[in-house]
Amino acid sequence: MSILVRGTAVVQRAEDGVVPHADVVIEGRRYEAILPSGGATEEFDRVVDGEGCLLVPGLVNAHTHLAMALFRGLARDLPLDRWLANEIWPRERKLTAKDVYWGSLLGLAEMIRGGTTAFADMYFFMDEVGRAVEEAGLRALLSYGIIAPTPERIEPELKRAEELVRTWEGAADGRIRTAFSPHAPLTCSADGWRRAAALARENRVPIHTHLAETEQEVERIRAETKHSPAEWLEELGVFSIPVIAAHCVHLSEKDIEILAAHGATAVHCPTSNLKLAAGIAPVQEMLRGGVNVALGTDGAASAGDLNMIEEMRLAALLAKHRARDPGALPPGEALRCATTRGAIALGLGKELGTIEPGRRADGVLVRMNGLHVCPGYDPLADLVYAAQGLDVEAVFVDGRPLLLKGEIQTLDVDEIKGRCRQLARRFR
Amino acid sequence: MSILVRGTAVVQRAEDGVVPHADVVIEGRRYEAILPSGGATEEFDRVVDGEGCLLVPGLVNAHTHLAMALFRGLARDLPLDRWLANEIWPRERKLTAKDVYWGSLLGLAEMIRGGTTAFADMYFFMDEVGRAVEEAGLRALLSYGIIAPTPERIEPELKRAEELVRTWEGAADGRIRTAFSPHAPLTCSADGWRRAAALARENRVPIHTHLAETEQEVERIRAETKHSPAEWLEELGVFSIPVIAAHCVHLSEKDIEILAAHGATAVHCPTSNLKLAAGIAPVQEMLRGGVNVALGTDGAASAGDLNMIEEMRLAALLAKHRARDPGALPPGEALRCATTRGAIALGLGKELGTIEPGRRADGVLVRMNGLHVCPGYDPLADLVYAAQGLDVEAVFVDGRPLLLKGEIQTLDVDEIKGRCRQLARRFR
Repeated sequence: MSILVRGTAVVQRAEDGVVPHADVVIEGRRYEAILPSGGATEEFDRVVDGEGCLLVPGLVNAHTHLAMALFRGLARDLPLDRWLANEIWPRERKLTAKDVYWGSLLGLAEMIRGGTTAFADMYFFMDEVGRAVEEAGLRALLSYGIIAPTPERIEPELKRAEELVRTWEGAADGRIRTAFSPHAPLTCSADGWRRAAALARENRVPIHTHLAETEQEVERIRAETKHSPAEWLEELGVFSIPVIAAHCVHLSEKDIEILAAHGATAVHCPTSNLKLAAGIAPVQEMLRGGVNVALGTDGAASAGDLNMIEEMRLAALLAKHRARDPGALPPGEALRCATTRGAIALGLGKELGTIEPGRRADGVLVRMNGLHVCPGYDPLADLVYAAQGLDVEAVFVDGRPLLLKGEIQTLDVDEIKGRCRQLARRFR
Repeated sequence: MSILVRGTAVVQRAEDGVVPHADVVIEGRRYEAILPSGGATEEFDRVVDGEGCLLVPGLVNAHTHLAMALFRGLARDLPLDRWLANEIWPRERKLTAKDVYWGSLLGLAEMIRGGTTAFADMYFFMDEVGRAVEEAGLRALLSYGIIAPTPERIEPELKRAEELVRTWEGAADGRIRTAFSPHAPLTCSADGWRRAAALARENRVPIHTHLAETEQEVERIRAETKHSPAEWLEELGVFSIPVIAAHCVHLSEKDIEILAAHGATAVHCPTSNLKLAAGIAPVQEMLRGGVNVALGTDGAASAGDLNMIEEMRLAALLAKHRARDPGALPPGEALRCATTRGAIALGLGKELGTIEPGRRADGVLVRMNGLHVCPGYDPLADLVYAAQGLDVEAVFVDGRPLLLKGEIQTLDVDEIKGRCRQLARRFR
């Protein structure tokens, strides 16, 4: 299929600023050309009107727990440990495959509506998540969350994790890739970490985990191992594999050096970190130290929603606060974390993250003619500091339109909402 | 005119939670009844479908500079002093009455679209702002920003400020009220402050100012007066008048006691404070100390937009971070700051801020059936942690619909956007 996005402003690479008026040509799964507006004269299977819009590379949500959209709004305003132990885990024990399927579809539909084209998900009943991703049309890195604080629990967990990798790696026309997910330093034993890392190496897939989310985690790991969580994982050999480490709120300088030296990605989840009072991650320090910093929402149960435009805004605002410098993380840098750096996190840095001929045609068309982005001196500033998720007009993944005129093309939104409301009754 | 909002969920008072299904009757300018759903059987001039929506008291933006919407996106990412001195003030010197008129209309339209029903504005060319408010239909507290760091500049400034009060107090059917605005501790001399306070007392209107926005302000005032800004204003007798003090980021315990003792309002502007790296205001400490804390956006040039739902969210998130307690500022409290406490700030605490028979019919109907607020266990949590400005469906002020089905009823949105884009060319 060939698509022309006509007369749109374009951000080809987040660091390069905005081309004010262009025709963008998609041929099959890839961008073919970015021409001066009016430059595309051939016939196309579909023409999308980009007038008054801004086309940016697809937003990558580099850390979430998709199906937790089903728990959105439950048990709010609690600290992470009590929230998990008293509210979330008891409900997760009641989750069925069906709940995860519909909860995942809810999360997927919400992400499409808000401009996310790719994401890294860690959860369970992952076959259901895979099925949902196949239908939705997004790009995903899927992993099963291995929870085995004592060594005797590791065997069945690893088996499940490996099954996921065997079943889903490369599925959905290559849109689905997989990872191993030892859940967090505190929830896996040293043995579990070593064996998960060995499996990741053997299967040539990355590791997706939580790291240094709370001060308590850092203190407990230090008490048990005399190391910081990052030091401990390095000692276990985990960083010899590509690592996607969510949160990274409480890092030492040495931890930052470890992440940078091994090419690991830190996924900044600003809303979740504030909402659970975990802290503010040292984004500037990580970027200066050479760490690849991506952005994520975390699950909607902790963050409230799966809105990557909002995460960009909050990341930009918090970086200024933490650095006491209004120049910290300007809009282009925030967008880069949500696009190019997210693509790198998913191991797709050469395929995704920019709008250039030959790159995969993942992109988000954002309507920039609302009152709240007028008069429009600086579209990148308006995108990051003022645009809303509902401004997203169209979404493409691999050249396929998942959203057009704000309407999801691949899923039945009303059915998803209805099913989720019904399933939600069991979790009140 | 009589209006029925049919079958909506309602927050009557932010502290009381949600009535899941009700008929809300507006008669003339006031709420007449809140009935069980299906309870309203008479004829109404207008019936608004509230199915799938949440009706909340009108949001009050207690500190803004409306016409600065015309500067949105300009000169981003600079510290407050350089931003003002090098970027904003030179442009403000070029502003004409016409610019302020259209810039104000842009801000007003944006506020209506996002659910704001009342606001406190401090700027200049205030006759133009008043005209724009008359047309838009919002409720406003208008003031002229008095800037007179040296005593010889005070005379013409006070004259302008007083003219505004004489001309506009009680205008637009009582929707417009006025205040005196010595701009900030650093930008008015002691003499200017005393004389402005005397005029406010004489005219029985409040004072609207900036207070303790940056550390530099606190340090400079302390160097000059040996007092904190709040102590200094107290010594000058300013707090004997109702005071609306924007920002209040850097307050001592004693400052908080001063604000509380005099019944002053602190207006928390979280986005602006982060964006300019001013800091995070001690909201929990102020509330615990008995200060009336309202919310504001500040101008769109500093904050990016005039989105009160976003300010609620950010206020709730930052309070948790600052207090290291996820229980800090729960959704109902954040909404209370944006409604009841905002109404108190504007001196209208007995008329506005709740949805109860006899109260002024200011209200916001928010669509709560989007993907991002599904499944909907807790509408207040969904409103504060997930809803977007564009979810606002209808807005009423004094029983008059300013927005219906997301469409502004009182202003020509396309003309406003077109004019503002044209005027913006001079400010690039």
